[in-house]
Amino acid sequence: MQIPSIAPIADVALQQTLQDAINNKTKPRGSLGRLEDLAAQLGLIQGSTQVVINEPAILVFAGDHGVVAEGVSGYPQDVTWQMVENFLANGAAINVFARQNGCALHVVDAGVNHDFGPRPALVDRKVARGTRNFAVEPAMSPQELETALKHGMALAADLPGNVVGFGEMGIGNTTAAAAIMHKLTDVALPQCVGAGTGLSSEGIARKQAVIAAAVDKHAGATSPLEVLATFGGFEIAMMAGAMLKAAALRKVLLIDGFIVTSALLVAARLQPAILDYCVFAHCSDENGHRLMLENLGARPLLNLGLRLGEGTGSALALPLLHAAANFLNEMATFASASVSTSDQ
Amino acid sequence: MQIPSIAPIADVALQQTLQDAINNKTKPRGSLGRLEDLAAQLGLIQGSTQVVINEPAILVFAGDHGVVAEGVSGYPQDVTWQMVENFLANGAAINVFARQNGCALHVVDAGVNHDFGPRPALVDRKVARGTRNFAVEPAMSPQELETALKHGMALAADLPGNVVGFGEMGIGNTTAAAAIMHKLTDVALPQCVGAGTGLSSEGIARKQAVIAAAVDKHAGATSPLEVLATFGGFEIAMMAGAMLKAAALRKVLLIDGFIVTSALLVAARLQPAILDYCVFAHCSDENGHRLMLENLGARPLLNLGLRLGEGTGSALALPLLHAAANFLNEMATFASASVSTSDQ
Repeated sequence: MQIPSIAPIADVALQQTLQDAINNKTKPRGSLGRLEDLAAQLGLIQGSTQVVINEPAILVFAGDHGVVAEGVSGYPQDVTWQMVENFLANGAAINVFARQNGCALHVVDAGVNHDFGPRPALVDRKVARGTRNFAVEPAMSPQELETALKHGMALAADLPGNVVGFGEMGIGNTTAAAAIMHKLTDVALPQCVGAGTGLSSEGIARKQAVIAAAVDKHAGATSPLEVLATFGGFEIAMMAGAMLKAAALRKVLLIDGFIVTSALLVAARLQPAILDYCVFAHCSDENGHRLMLENLGARPLLNLGLRLGEGTGSALALPLLHAAANFLNEMATFASASVSTSDQ
Repeated sequence: MQIPSIAPIADVALQQTLQDAINNKTKPRGSLGRLEDLAAQLGLIQGSTQVVINEPAILVFAGDHGVVAEGVSGYPQDVTWQMVENFLANGAAINVFARQNGCALHVVDAGVNHDFGPRPALVDRKVARGTRNFAVEPAMSPQELETALKHGMALAADLPGNVVGFGEMGIGNTTAAAAIMHKLTDVALPQCVGAGTGLSSEGIARKQAVIAAAVDKHAGATSPLEVLATFGGFEIAMMAGAMLKAAALRKVLLIDGFIVTSALLVAARLQPAILDYCVFAHCSDENGHRLMLENLGARPLLNLGLRLGEGTGSALALPLLHAAANFLNEMATFASASVSTSDQ
């Protein structure tokens, strides 16, 4: 299978032009902090000093996980499809925040263990009714992995806009993401495993033991795609595919929390330049996310103790992306506003 | 002069009702982190589980400072009035962010050293053409202080909405704010003084020496209002008055950076319950702001390395306030969406 090739955004001349444009705005140099970095990044991605945020969309990928048979989640597996229904009925947090911030929302069935029937609002890319239990066997076959990645790429290619936020829903998927993180970063397992939807310390210990045993069992899985197939969910794999294609198309990627970042981890091991296109929305309260971000050299915008998933962090960070674009496009310069500079 | 009396928002029964409403939303308990605290705070301020954000407005107070004669700023004093012109021409960062986030913007001349002439868009509450140089004498007279506070209170009372963001413009006002902070918190002076608009380390040392000498000179000024009159700017005093009145009217106060927080420090020493009404928009990059927030027991929402002032942090945090209100008002409950809980 062809993994999309992603070009770095480095352009020394444009970077200088952007920095000059930012410095000429009527404010002390550097005083818009992270928004200045963000404006420069947007400009480099779009190859312009006039940046545009066009039809931002959030893709929420849902999938089930066979490993829930091991008792790794505080919620029953049915919550995955029930929450998909909640998304379709506009009742979930991501619906509220996407609507508030003028962001389209696409809900994708990547592999939920439920028959939704024909539902126009649901993007049906179901690979299978959940992955296999990775405590026993690999979560997916190489063919299933390829199907998931290809669907993700096609979905990203079909988006009309130039900003894609990522979100997910899947009972058990912090277990999958923790295993992927441990395998791809070498961070010790206890630092990769957290409470997910709200496990007790006993629950976390069980979850950790399940992952530790599975990591031993599947010691031969070492390449990013092997790790993804062995531990991943269909929603994680489809996201990774969508991220790779979106970055290849020079879209901005809004990266949410622990599970979304685990998909990016896989994608970044395949195409490191993908990180140039990523805006890290927030640092999640899920144990492991901070270290995962550090491993990627990522600096998140928000730190609000969120641990909900669904792309809620992506949606909440979108106004900051607009703010970066807007100050670059709309603020007066010292010259245009006849404001004295510090040199005068 | 009558300082408005401010009632604490504590209401044990409503707090429990709000917490139950938040917990019944379709998400793991606590998973919206800081937004959950914010929703509960909004509910307590408004005395309801259905919260409303109505006609949010940002007041930007501008004033000049006699202490600039001591060479404490990297920019000439004219930048204060030039930036007011920039606000009126919609060219500044605060214009961009307020417009983006649907927030009214009112620019108040609290005491700029410039004759703007008749300008319908400018709220003229000029107390005087700048304060006196506090290196030599108190910045304002008791009568000027009272005038500034009263104007602030009246402006807050006239606002139609229930959310007020605060911002400021005034060359030299980090010097005034640092002096106020030092006097009212007992934090050592070097930790209160920062680079402002971008001073060199030599500039910071000079600024610190100017404040240290003035603090010695005016050792008798110890009450919050004495400190405000001695070191404050007209924009800081008018903000303090507006904050006190806005909280007395049970409006939500959006607190910006270093200078705005110094005005709140004065207000909170007069009426400690004002803090119940405050949403702390961000932690500024200006040295001292973090400690000032800690002194107030405040947890800022954003931490983006901003140090621009004007209320830009307030404007950028407004979408998070909307998000808190919206999830409380609009999200489905486990029961309404037929989603299983962790107990099942």
